[in-house]
Amino acid sequence: MFDYRALEALTAVIEQGGFERAAKRLNISQSAVSQRIRQLEFRLGQPVLLRISPPRLTEIGQRLTNHLQQVQQLEQSLLTEEHPEQDVTVRLAVNADSIDTWLAPALAQCPVSQRMNFELVIEDQRIGLQRMKNGEVMACICESAQPVNGGLSQKLGVVRYLALASPDFIHNYAAGDRGHHWLQQAPCLVYSGDDQLQHQFLALLQLDAPGRFQRVPSSSGFVQMARAGLGFGMMPEIQVREFLADGSLVNVAPQHWIDVPHYWHYWQTESDYMVQLRQAVVKHAAECLL
Amino acid sequence: MFDYRALEALTAVIEQGGFERAAKRLNISQSAVSQRIRQLEFRLGQPVLLRISPPRLTEIGQRLTNHLQQVQQLEQSLLTEEHPEQDVTVRLAVNADSIDTWLAPALAQCPVSQRMNFELVIEDQRIGLQRMKNGEVMACICESAQPVNGGLSQKLGVVRYLALASPDFIHNYAAGDRGHHWLQQAPCLVYSGDDQLQHQFLALLQLDAPGRFQRVPSSSGFVQMARAGLGFGMMPEIQVREFLADGSLVNVAPQHWIDVPHYWHYWQTESDYMVQLRQAVVKHAAECLL
Repeated sequence: MFDYRALEALTAVIEQGGFERAAKRLNISQSAVSQRIRQLEFRLGQPVLLRISPPRLTEIGQRLTNHLQQVQQLEQSLLTEEHPEQDVTVRLAVNADSIDTWLAPALAQCPVSQRMNFELVIEDQRIGLQRMKNGEVMACICESAQPVNGGLSQKLGVVRYLALASPDFIHNYAAGDRGHHWLQQAPCLVYSGDDQLQHQFLALLQLDAPGRFQRVPSSSGFVQMARAGLGFGMMPEIQVREFLADGSLVNVAPQHWIDVPHYWHYWQTESDYMVQLRQAVVKHAAECLL
Repeated sequence: MFDYRALEALTAVIEQGGFERAAKRLNISQSAVSQRIRQLEFRLGQPVLLRISPPRLTEIGQRLTNHLQQVQQLEQSLLTEEHPEQDVTVRLAVNADSIDTWLAPALAQCPVSQRMNFELVIEDQRIGLQRMKNGEVMACICESAQPVNGGLSQKLGVVRYLALASPDFIHNYAAGDRGHHWLQQAPCLVYSGDDQLQHQFLALLQLDAPGRFQRVPSSSGFVQMARAGLGFGMMPEIQVREFLADGSLVNVAPQHWIDVPHYWHYWQTESDYMVQLRQAVVKHAAECLL
């Protein structure tokens, strides 16, 4: 058998982004974390992680943490059958737009949500799947349909992203340009360095990458910055209906949008609780998304 | 004179949380980053950062990055005088609640905001000041009045945090308890590991730390989770007025709240543009905050 304490230490180092914080999380010394991982590497005859900042898993390391997550799901099924009154921690990687719009009621509709302590990790929908591959999370919402090793995926629906800005912003920057070339020079809102939606949109209009950026790592802050006239950007239709209605946001290119599919990724060894959660999320998503 | 390229490399390593990403940001090789920093340390005869994950500044390292930020502000004054048409990047550390509520219109009201590319870094209001101390940002909003070395602070106002939950949540967990003891067992929303507001609130009611957590690193997601009945937590009054009015959120202890002061921290070497930004933020905050 593997030394599961070593696998836990490995997962904690990746989750927490370092040995020191992993030790704090596991309530053991930093040298204990290092030692467990070194012993694991000695047994396998190869490194399980790259000691850079933040540490990164090697291929074998990724297979191990992925395996641990599946084992933990099996344990959870066993424990919740034995102790149905016990709380379980549910760690999910989700995109910021989902948690700010449709996801919370979906989680609440799971019949066992009162037993769940949610730990949400916010990632761009393009990269959340990496957390799943690493076995860091129990499920994830992302735009890729391709399941990870040991996992499956189920379609939730499509979120339509519109390119929006305030009327004043358009007046200032478009300055009579009836095409879309002005968008290349106007300040463009981006959520983070991983957020490529705005670039994709300009490419769709056969324009170059945006020239000026406003970086706002908050989904709701992103919308506030657009309403305040500080930039244009891609926003989920479901998040901005009221602002389109009251005219504080306007579509800068009404003939164009980007549809982003959303998938729920889960483990084949999914626990009973996680089955119920998936079903609740799928059902609610079917009502909210396209 | 210092080697300012080395100081830039040092700041980038701290900002980006590692040598590899710093190299990418500066568009140089990782070995060039390491070499510049090593030469700086050789000259000073002591380390400027701890090579842990993520890297951390030593005391002398902190003084150097802090110094660099002040020099950059001076440069900016010079450049914007010479080239008033040039854009400037304005890197700010702000708390999530501010950007999701009152801050965006304040930034927009700055007369030179059209020339500014904002780069927002979101930090808990208790720890944003560390970014300022490190010289990583040009200004910061936080709850401390104490200026950093080389900096000054100005009061913006007070944000009142109320302890709120959905009516269903209170019905399920309070179950007739007319006091507040039920809050210790009920799931408690927290924004991040640095978010101590809920702990402070329970201490105010002479209760122990919360027993169950829901971790939601999104200000607006936090409110959505509360409205969906998944937890109670402290929310800014200015963010939830409409939900208090429509009854989807209810005060769990109406006689108690936490007032969090907000301060704008800036550098003594503040550029002209940053003076105008500060004045716009102070003016708008006076209208929105208590």
